[in-house]
Amino acid sequence: MKGEKRIGILTSGGDCAGLNAVIRAVVHRATLTYGWQVIGIKEGTMGLLSRPVQYEVLDLDMVGSSMMRQGGTILGTTNRGNPFAFPMSDGTVKDRSAEIAGGYREMGLDALIGIGGDGSFAILRKLAQQCGMNLVGVPKTIDNDLGLTEVSVGYDTAVAVATEALDRLQPTAASHARVMVLEVMGRDAGHIALAAGIAGGADVILIPEIPFQMDRIADKIRQVRNQGRNFALVVVSEAVKTSEGKEIQKEYQGGEKRFGGIGNYIGEQIAAATGAETRVTVLGHVQRGSMPSPRDRLIASAFGVHAVDLIAEGKFDRMVAWSNREVIDVSIEDAIARYQAVELDGALVKTARGLGICLGD
Amino acid sequence: MKGEKRIGILTSGGDCAGLNAVIRAVVHRATLTYGWQVIGIKEGTMGLLSRPVQYEVLDLDMVGSSMMRQGGTILGTTNRGNPFAFPMSDGTVKDRSAEIAGGYREMGLDALIGIGGDGSFAILRKLAQQCGMNLVGVPKTIDNDLGLTEVSVGYDTAVAVATEALDRLQPTAASHARVMVLEVMGRDAGHIALAAGIAGGADVILIPEIPFQMDRIADKIRQVRNQGRNFALVVVSEAVKTSEGKEIQKEYQGGEKRFGGIGNYIGEQIAAATGAETRVTVLGHVQRGSMPSPRDRLIASAFGVHAVDLIAEGKFDRMVAWSNREVIDVSIEDAIARYQAVELDGALVKTARGLGICLGD
Amino acid sequence: MKGEKRIGILTSGGDCAGLNAVIRAVVHRATLTYGWQVIGIKEGTMGLLSRPVQYEVLDLDMVGSSMMRQGGTILGTTNRGNPFAFPMSDGTVKDRSAEIAGGYREMGLDALIGIGGDGSFAILRKLAQQCGMNLVGVPKTIDNDLGLTEVSVGYDTAVAVATEALDRLQPTAASHARVMVLEVMGRDAGHIALAAGIAGGADVILIPEIPFQMDRIADKIRQVRNQGRNFALVVVSEAVKTSEGKEIQKEYQGGEKRFGGIGNYIGEQIAAATGAETRVTVLGHVQRGSMPSPRDRLIASAFGVHAVDLIAEGKFDRMVAWSNREVIDVSIEDAIARYQAVELDGALVKTARGLGICLGD
Amino acid sequence: MKGEKRIGILTSGGDCAGLNAVIRAVVHRATLTYGWQVIGIKEGTMGLLSRPVQYEVLDLDMVGSSMMRQGGTILGTTNRGNPFAFPMSDGTVKDRSAEIAGGYREMGLDALIGIGGDGSFAILRKLAQQCGMNLVGVPKTIDNDLGLTEVSVGYDTAVAVATEALDRLQPTAASHARVMVLEVMGRDAGHIALAAGIAGGADVILIPEIPFQMDRIADKIRQVRNQGRNFALVVVSEAVKTSEGKEIQKEYQGGEKRFGGIGNYIGEQIAAATGAETRVTVLGHVQRGSMPSPRDRLIASAFGVHAVDLIAEGKFDRMVAWSNREVIDVSIEDAIARYQAVELDGALVKTARGLGICLGD
Repeated sequence: MKGEKRIGILTSGGDCAGLNAVIRAVVHRATLTYGWQVIGIKEGTMGLLSRPVQYEVLDLDMVGSSMMRQGGTILGTTNRGNPFAFPMSDGTVKDRSAEIAGGYREMGLDALIGIGGDGSFAILRKLAQQCGMNLVGVPKTIDNDLGLTEVSVGYDTAVAVATEALDRLQPTAASHARVMVLEVMGRDAGHIALAAGIAGGADVILIPEIPFQMDRIADKIRQVRNQGRNFALVVVSEAVKTSEGKEIQKEYQGGEKRFGGIGNYIGEQIAAATGAETRVTVLGHVQRGSMPSPRDRLIASAFGVHAVDLIAEGKFDRMVAWSNREVIDVSIEDAIARYQAVELDGALVKTARGLGICLGD
Repeated sequence: MKGEKRIGILTSGGDCAGLNAVIRAVVHRATLTYGWQVIGIKEGTMGLLSRPVQYEVLDLDMVGSSMMRQGGTILGTTNRGNPFAFPMSDGTVKDRSAEIAGGYREMGLDALIGIGGDGSFAILRKLAQQCGMNLVGVPKTIDNDLGLTEVSVGYDTAVAVATEALDRLQPTAASHARVMVLEVMGRDAGHIALAAGIAGGADVILIPEIPFQMDRIADKIRQVRNQGRNFALVVVSEAVKTSEGKEIQKEYQGGEKRFGGIGNYIGEQIAAATGAETRVTVLGHVQRGSMPSPRDRLIASAFGVHAVDLIAEGKFDRMVAWSNREVIDVSIEDAIARYQAVELDGALVKTARGLGICLGD
Repeated sequence: MKGEKRIGILTSGGDCAGLNAVIRAVVHRATLTYGWQVIGIKEGTMGLLSRPVQYEVLDLDMVGSSMMRQGGTILGTTNRGNPFAFPMSDGTVKDRSAEIAGGYREMGLDALIGIGGDGSFAILRKLAQQCGMNLVGVPKTIDNDLGLTEVSVGYDTAVAVATEALDRLQPTAASHARVMVLEVMGRDAGHIALAAGIAGGADVILIPEIPFQMDRIADKIRQVRNQGRNFALVVVSEAVKTSEGKEIQKEYQGGEKRFGGIGNYIGEQIAAATGAETRVTVLGHVQRGSMPSPRDRLIASAFGVHAVDLIAEGKFDRMVAWSNREVIDVSIEDAIARYQAVELDGALVKTARGLGICLGD
Repeated sequence: MKGEKRIGILTSGGDCAGLNAVIRAVVHRATLTYGWQVIGIKEGTMGLLSRPVQYEVLDLDMVGSSMMRQGGTILGTTNRGNPFAFPMSDGTVKDRSAEIAGGYREMGLDALIGIGGDGSFAILRKLAQQCGMNLVGVPKTIDNDLGLTEVSVGYDTAVAVATEALDRLQPTAASHARVMVLEVMGRDAGHIALAAGIAGGADVILIPEIPFQMDRIADKIRQVRNQGRNFALVVVSEAVKTSEGKEIQKEYQGGEKRFGGIGNYIGEQIAAATGAETRVTVLGHVQRGSMPSPRDRLIASAFGVHAVDLIAEGKFDRMVAWSNREVIDVSIEDAIARYQAVELDGALVKTARGLGICLGD
């Protein structure tokens, strides 16, 4: 029954590497296997909310092999605009969910593939339930904190970029006998910091899940020095907290500064506590925009194909997931509920401790 | 009970990216957590077979953070020399297993960590059983064909190098309207070709698990051309077979040539069948020697830590393995038995077909 | 006097990295500074030869910042088709130069920017003179053999890709005690092999300018081994000759084989002469299609801007060139005449010999 | 007359990529061609100042091909310690130049190769003249601001790292409709910012040589938006000044902050002036510590070989330099005197303006 369906696809929340590979796979599977039409909705749910609906018909000509290499998302995305409490230009907030449902119907969509993280899925799911949209989710987040999937799109690339930064900081640290601090992303979960720190040979890794004590960090740096090594590498997740529960980023930036932050703070503290010459790098959005790693492209492609198959089978309210070399699907509700912070007795933490890395505690 | 043990470590079989990260992790865990001494055996079992035994005491000073970035193995390795049928210089073969057991005892080793693939494990396990060695295995193989682990050390990097080659072939293929053939490694299993082919946007992927018909390949290339695209990308695993069971490599090279092979053959056949301008790249050992990917370093580090822990717990004849973000351990015997070729109904094959890629059948 | 001119641009001969950066710069300069229109001619002179002329109007929207990263050429190119002796489908050759001149006039072009190497320039210049076209040349060639410019577009990237291959071969060579042979491009000039060989730490570099003796190569490999190093790296330019003047590629491939070649031959010879375990990599077109290096993008951009300025100044029959951090322009005729092979007493050869590298002589 | 000489080598000032390639080349040339001994002095002039002198005898075994890939310097370096006004631990300064001359004599050195920038050369030259040391200089500086050489060691790699950061910021900028600010190094000269900005497709590039007006920047960003592009890329050199002569870095950081700086300031200003969502990346020392680019390795190798030859010819007080594909040598005095800021009518500035890039004026 080719040609019957028209499916929408949108990317939601912070962008990352691999989104375009999902889109490309969806277009291939839907077009080649089922003969469906794919509608790319612009800027997340904003595209469905706009009138006319902002979209692009996606066909095979538009999704060539070079698209695999492109970071970001050709559809655009947004962090603004919870449609249930949309910030209006007059300063009020308004429930605009019905407008999105209207956009979905106006476009004649049979189903919608949402590529997002837990925040996006919570909103999309509520929309789907209230408005009768057929939703399939594809997990993406550089933080890798979504439950029920081994990995989400974008994480592998973010870790690669952060690791590469450590690779580059080590030689100059050693040449100048310095402590190098690298601030990486990770709003609530420390997976990037932990994985990159291990892979990049860090001495100290600070993550949100483990409140840190500056004493321990200073001890580690002195210990490294006493063992005859003249440099140290420190990785800091952007949202770390002290053991007294202070969220550094807020404290340090106060009300005045929008940029800069935790990396600089930690660098200053280390310099003060140890007397070590210290330098700071704030990687920022290079972690999001990099060319997708092969693994991210592969997982994204597998996810895209399976997401279309779920629509073909009429299985909605499901999220595709990666498990032991295979693609499976799970309940979106369960995936959101099982938030996946760094497990304190998991392989990454155990490995870090086994390598003698200081985790701040 | 620190200081009690002396453990050996060796790398066996073809080298790959990440071996040094395993060694580094073993030295850290054994030294820092248990206070043991680590003996690096040179050139696989050859080091134990030599008299005096060829080895190096490995301490923390030798395994700095820059070691994470080094491809290959600081211990050396070898593909020669099954000790049960060792090729002697006079042309005979000899069982030299007892000499290896002697080396193990002479060094006063309490256990041996062997980093290898299925071939190496079969030999090491037989040695361990006959000679009373306490063996723990760490899986490495760019082919990723070991069972009971999601992934082996070296695979992620090999896929990355092969994918990058496709990234580079696509623009020149498009500029000149050419078919580009890329020959990648994979003696028995097509995982590298399949993963890299998907990630790199290939049109045709040939793997040993699926005997190919040149007709189908030519059809695909003509189809691509008819759809208005002027180029095509073809990935070929080195050990592919035709649907009549011909192993191309042997046929093509005959008795005369030691180098070159399947990629060139396929390129010639495609040119003849389609009239397309065709070019061939034979990647060779750049797939083995590249700087380890972050994921390979992470898995290698986790494996190294866990391997030492197994010794501490007295669990021998076990191989560490990766499963759903965690390190587990499995029976070496079972891991070898469950050879992991590309599954024809697995995620990779399904994804490739979903993307419209021709697999030669 | 904005808006007066209409200029054509085409890419000719083998593609390389940086062509799109030239095109992008030409469009920016012509549009923003002079208000001219830029016509992109498809597939080199073939586009002007076709009826209707094959072209695309290039405006700023089409040349975004991501174009900097794209290898190849958005205009396509061709190695076929000398228009003065064009191979017709009936097997005859025909002078079709007047048709190209016709295309130029039909399009109403005021000038033509040709991006090419010496072969392309010879043809384009003859066309320009016979047919009254206003020609400006931009030098591109991975071989870097054009005279009167320090560097041509595409060379820096090709060297980078070849060097990276050596970086990857070294660790696996050392792990397995092997000789690794890398075949790189360079039809007449050995610049790529020499630069990459030096940068990648090669022991032997063979270039067309220095006929080689296998004895010397074998001596070098034995010498390396005697000094206690267990591996060696050999770089071979595709067009090397023996000291007896044999062109290996033709000899070796005979009439039967279209692919494979000199690298395999050299590998076999080395294995036979030294008994060393030897492996071969044939890099092929990954040297052309890679993402442009920053230097290639910079030079390409500077060339593009200056080429448009030459048209504004009415200076034709000129080629832009790089000299001591500046862009200059030179006579195309002189640039072709001063073919720039590797100078045997130049910095590269002197450096190679200073590092103890064997050049085959 | 082999074996006659003993030459010292040291790296001075901020480290960069390619220093080890210089050292490697010096050891090869001195050892293989002249049979001299090479003494590696530790941590710049600090090694000669210490008693005993801190050094390492450098032989061929220590400078393998993998050294080409190592960032930093195996000899260590320092930014501290002008020996003519050395900061003592009691807070006083002291002329310790005689101690360095003593170290030079104590080691029995015939000549000293100093790898440094203009600051280091000024000191080394004064030392050489006062104390009778035979000095040869090798230029290195990521800022590329040394006169009389087309390029210094380390610049090419720094530009590559900064360009790559722009490559990564562009897709995420476009996906989120953001302005991305990238702060790069460049204390007095804007070469890195300018070259990387051009190569990375920046819209605005701010360099110390051109005081900027925020109005112009805001105009450019609005103009880009009006043309229908939703993002912009801004590169800022760390030492830019406003058109009123304010040095932002000092102003912004005040007395309180050691880290963070100009990038954050510019980001805040742009956000305030345009309302654009803005994000900032501070690359920091990843620009110094990266793996050397092939070009840096090549130039470094050529410099190292030529520096040794200068000693053999008894030509002292000379600096090796790169000019039109060749290595030459120039007077150190002249090289320092001809400080090479970005030329306002040079190729880079002209290219940037030709591409429509806003330079802040």
